[in-house]
Amino acid sequence: MKELLVTLDTSAKAFLYEQIYASLRRDILEGRLSCGERLPSARLLASQLQVSRSTVDAAYAQLVSEGYLKARRGSGYYVCEAGELYDFTNGKGWNIADEPVQLRAGKKEEQLSVKYNFLPGQVDDGAFAYNAWRKCTKEALLELESSRSLLRAGHPQGEYALRRAIAAYLYQARGVRCEPEQLVIGAGNEYLLQLLGQLLDGPRKVAMESPTYLQAYHTFCNIGYAVCAVSMDEEGMRTQELPAEGVSLVYVMPSHQFPLGAVMPLRRRIMLLKWAAAGSGRYIIEDDHDSEFRYKGRPIPSLQGMAKQEHVIYLGTFSNSIMPSVRMSYMVLPHPLLKAYETRCGFYASTVSRLVQMTVCRFLEQGYFERHLNKMRGVYRARHDTLLQLLNDKPWVYRIYGSYAGLHLAVELACPLTEDALAARARAFGIAVQGMSGCYIAGKKKPDERPVLLLGFGNLTQAQLQEGVQVLEDAVKST
Amino acid sequence: MKELLVTLDTSAKAFLYEQIYASLRRDILEGRLSCGERLPSARLLASQLQVSRSTVDAAYAQLVSEGYLKARRGSGYYVCEAGELYDFTNGKGWNIADEPVQLRAGKKEEQLSVKYNFLPGQVDDGAFAYNAWRKCTKEALLELESSRSLLRAGHPQGEYALRRAIAAYLYQARGVRCEPEQLVIGAGNEYLLQLLGQLLDGPRKVAMESPTYLQAYHTFCNIGYAVCAVSMDEEGMRTQELPAEGVSLVYVMPSHQFPLGAVMPLRRRIMLLKWAAAGSGRYIIEDDHDSEFRYKGRPIPSLQGMAKQEHVIYLGTFSNSIMPSVRMSYMVLPHPLLKAYETRCGFYASTVSRLVQMTVCRFLEQGYFERHLNKMRGVYRARHDTLLQLLNDKPWVYRIYGSYAGLHLAVELACPLTEDALAARARAFGIAVQGMSGCYIAGKKKPDERPVLLLGFGNLTQAQLQEGVQVLEDAVKST
Repeated sequence: MKELLVTLDTSAKAFLYEQIYASLRRDILEGRLSCGERLPSARLLASQLQVSRSTVDAAYAQLVSEGYLKARRGSGYYVCEAGELYDFTNGKGWNIADEPVQLRAGKKEEQLSVKYNFLPGQVDDGAFAYNAWRKCTKEALLELESSRSLLRAGHPQGEYALRRAIAAYLYQARGVRCEPEQLVIGAGNEYLLQLLGQLLDGPRKVAMESPTYLQAYHTFCNIGYAVCAVSMDEEGMRTQELPAEGVSLVYVMPSHQFPLGAVMPLRRRIMLLKWAAAGSGRYIIEDDHDSEFRYKGRPIPSLQGMAKQEHVIYLGTFSNSIMPSVRMSYMVLPHPLLKAYETRCGFYASTVSRLVQMTVCRFLEQGYFERHLNKMRGVYRARHDTLLQLLNDKPWVYRIYGSYAGLHLAVELACPLTEDALAARARAFGIAVQGMSGCYIAGKKKPDERPVLLLGFGNLTQAQLQEGVQVLEDAVKST
Repeated sequence: MKELLVTLDTSAKAFLYEQIYASLRRDILEGRLSCGERLPSARLLASQLQVSRSTVDAAYAQLVSEGYLKARRGSGYYVCEAGELYDFTNGKGWNIADEPVQLRAGKKEEQLSVKYNFLPGQVDDGAFAYNAWRKCTKEALLELESSRSLLRAGHPQGEYALRRAIAAYLYQARGVRCEPEQLVIGAGNEYLLQLLGQLLDGPRKVAMESPTYLQAYHTFCNIGYAVCAVSMDEEGMRTQELPAEGVSLVYVMPSHQFPLGAVMPLRRRIMLLKWAAAGSGRYIIEDDHDSEFRYKGRPIPSLQGMAKQEHVIYLGTFSNSIMPSVRMSYMVLPHPLLKAYETRCGFYASTVSRLVQMTVCRFLEQGYFERHLNKMRGVYRARHDTLLQLLNDKPWVYRIYGSYAGLHLAVELACPLTEDALAARARAFGIAVQGMSGCYIAGKKKPDERPVLLLGFGNLTQAQLQEGVQVLEDAVKST
């Protein structure tokens, strides 16, 4: 076992664990640490570097979660296969701006008398940066008026200044590499998927995780795509099950899968990229919908940033990080698709109002977005921790999926009821919950074992969570 | 020739010519005046009613323009066939709120050094109700904040209050009969057409006028529809040329055709409605994009209001009447399609930001919209009259189409140049114009005779129009 060359800079802005992480990651990617090699124990490295053991633990944990290292019980940490990565030089360290994410579901506003709304897709409406938002709206309006551009249709892909701000944010926070010219801003993910359907030749067969984000599934069905469901495990989509023929598109959420919260490790990401490179016209749609809210370690870099960007279509949204009602998503098109976009769809006017675009642009440019994300991450982390702790204590909780990220937990219950019956009973107790069965694609149903509830915590205070879980327990136990 | 029973109420709010128009229209619709019957001469009726001759002329002209009467030179006015109308009882008289319309084209912002922008699709940016708009934006934002609904996704079809306001406006101004429940608000006409493509079974064959609004044509192509071009004449689409088989959808602009400005007379409207009723699953898409700006007579009522509303999908936009950058259109779905919408597309979140929706809602509810339309109609009428007069004097103008409505004139030139060459030459003189050839559907090209330019006057003052036409003349004569 060779000695690691980790140089720490205690005056740097980055945390020590981030520096260790970045240094080891670079060593792996550049081949100085090779596949299968064993790393020093955390205790040993900590003493070499004169840092605390927990600092090294945090760095190792992050590398494990991103698929660079593998932990073998009682034996230590080993380097995973990674030498085959095309290009991974965006190694500036992820000075992530901290951003929140919001889950997706429950689009229609609930009008029922619900006391505890555990539906996913809720963002906190108390802590929002109302003043900053109002200020940005007002300034954007005045600017548009004074430049006499308020009334004129803007650029079909969206305002250039906004695309520039999004590209900078995506690079810094998500490792996405793109020019503003590659960004298309649109009124929601579903609209952008419909647009993609018009860019790509003919109807396609798309592979999706099951369970998945069902709105995307229905959108594909609506535009005449065939959908092939691929199973999930704790590492996300089982890429080894991707059919060799027929499928030319993969829709995947590698950084934080909905609804299970799995993070796809490096090995599978590479398999995906290889799959895409192996056939002409193959594309991966990377839906990075809620990568902003991670409560442990650093965010998982995007798949798009790993590859040569020829095969990955990156899709993101402000629904979670700002608000669902802003109706703004964005996608990064690889260059060949950009040409197809211009030819086939360049005549479409942008689907987002110019005022809203310029408001979001100011929100980003003036630093409000970053501050908002930092604040909300703290708020959501506390709620996440509270909910996780409450549930961990309960004998009726069988297993919890997707912790330490996002705005919901998927909770498998030791309970004889079906999900539907459980949700109905909870509703009678004043609790809105969503079962996970509804997230499965036709033909790839949930195994009929225990019920799994998606418990969103985005808009519930810690006190409400405490009461809500108690009431949920009453509902479960009343069975 | 029987004597007409026209009762005039000089104390009524409606103009005398409107009362005469409404009375005769009712007589025709209810069969008291039958097909082929000859009306008294304008002079005779004027003396009977003791009104001026020009008052009766105005009423007759409106009835002719709407297809109720036909004028035969030297012989007088005759009633057209109209007894077969299904239901036409929304006969309250068109107390039109007065609304402006804006032409469609030139979506991308022009960055060239253009001194006179004659492109269609421009709205005046000096006379807009900036203060009212700012006030509505501010109030909408505060209301959404205080009701804690700013952050939440709204109704998939759009805010109910906005749909109610639009339904009321459409009824009063356009004779459209619908419940707010039938309205779907979306980010632009093209988005709504894409949505329609998902509602309707399978890919269809759609008939369109040629020349037409080419964005709609390209949208249909993009969603896999076959397009069948139907010729135009001065009465709009030649409905007699609609194929008996194969076509199950007609996209048409009966009230003010783009780009030629034709108004479809009653006879053809009835043919269209009969065509739709003759086959199952047939629909007419009535694009009523710029019916708000008429400078002579009253607006032509919508096709949707004439029928039982089972076969007409009504499509409208705020791009012209408010501003292109607001990105908001609406469609009225017949009940059977409403069910399909809910089943297949109900999961899509609205594509329009909630703030923008509530801003427009206040703009409508508080009467600003009506006032803005009244004002803009005056502004645009003056510009229209100026341009028409300027062009009428020119020997190089061969013919003018589409006068007395909309925000552009289609001008056929006595000039040996091709449209492209002419547009390029005009551009060299600092003038942006669009040729009409670009509005023709593939396979139904413009006959290669004289060039036709679309001259938009929406954002040119009268002085600019005067100078601009002079410069255009220089460009034309320099050939």
